[in-house]
Amino acid sequence: MSEHLFAPAGDKKSLESGSQLTPRFDANGLVTAIVTDFNSGELLMVAHMNAEALTRTIETGQSHFWSRSRQKLWLKGETSGTAQRVHEMRTDCDQDAIWLKVTVSGAGATCHTGMTSCFYRKIETSDGKINLLRDDSDPQFDPAVIYGNED
Amino acid sequence: MSEHLFAPAGDKKSLESGSQLTPRFDANGLVTAIVTDFNSGELLMVAHMNAEALTRTIETGQSHFWSRSRQKLWLKGETSGTAQRVHEMRTDCDQDAIWLKVTVSGAGATCHTGMTSCFYRKIETSDGKINLLRDDSDPQFDPAVIYGNED
Repeated sequence: MSEHLFAPAGDKKSLESGSQLTPRFDANGLVTAIVTDFNSGELLMVAHMNAEALTRTIETGQSHFWSRSRQKLWLKGETSGTAQRVHEMRTDCDQDAIWLKVTVSGAGATCHTGMTSCFYRKIETSDGKINLLRDDSDPQFDPAVIYGNED
Repeated sequence: MSEHLFAPAGDKKSLESGSQLTPRFDANGLVTAIVTDFNSGELLMVAHMNAEALTRTIETGQSHFWSRSRQKLWLKGETSGTAQRVHEMRTDCDQDAIWLKVTVSGAGATCHTGMTSCFYRKIETSDGKINLLRDDSDPQFDPAVIYGNED
């Protein structure tokens, strides 16, 4: 694994117009990762990557993230079997976000709740009140079976 | 404008299964905002929202963000005319990200560089080297005309 794949982020012009990937990691060493389904285009999840997760994702074609809650490298699907094969990666103008277009293996669900996408609830307002409404999608697996009693 | 629309984030169960929007703002008071095109589904941009930006977006149906570089509330399109009308909003399992499906007015470009999407470059590897390759999209406006000499 190459630890030093990325040169330091340059000035605005080179960030926006350059052909070199120089990610702008934040104070915690992370960039935002946006994951969409390669076929449907649906937004599946939002996560974070440190330099190692980004490097491994590029090198292996499998999504790796940095788990902020567990403070460790996270190969997506290692426990659940719902790994992500990366078909395309992009970065944005200021290189602090990475877009992954993936296909999901296993049960085809991305969210740890068993849902296809983490974004299974709409924000709606009625009578001046804000509510979350579940869409009509169903879980693709039972988290208790997949993860056991993990919290 | 209601300053206190959101109750404090609850436990894991209520975050994931509840019908109440209780955003998990980070240490800087921000959640991640993902913006896609309502018609094409294309990922347009990633930004951040504080409680006020989220509240104003819900109340007005126009995308508002928190500009980290300028440290101020940012009504998208105020300068460029490329405002975003919000058709649908969603949140994710742990309520630290918001998904906006929008249509873009004005020149139809979202990126300050004039591009339709901020994600106009693919990350490619060849001969073990990582490069950014522009896709074949063209700018929809000239930033120098729209923003003048702003940096």
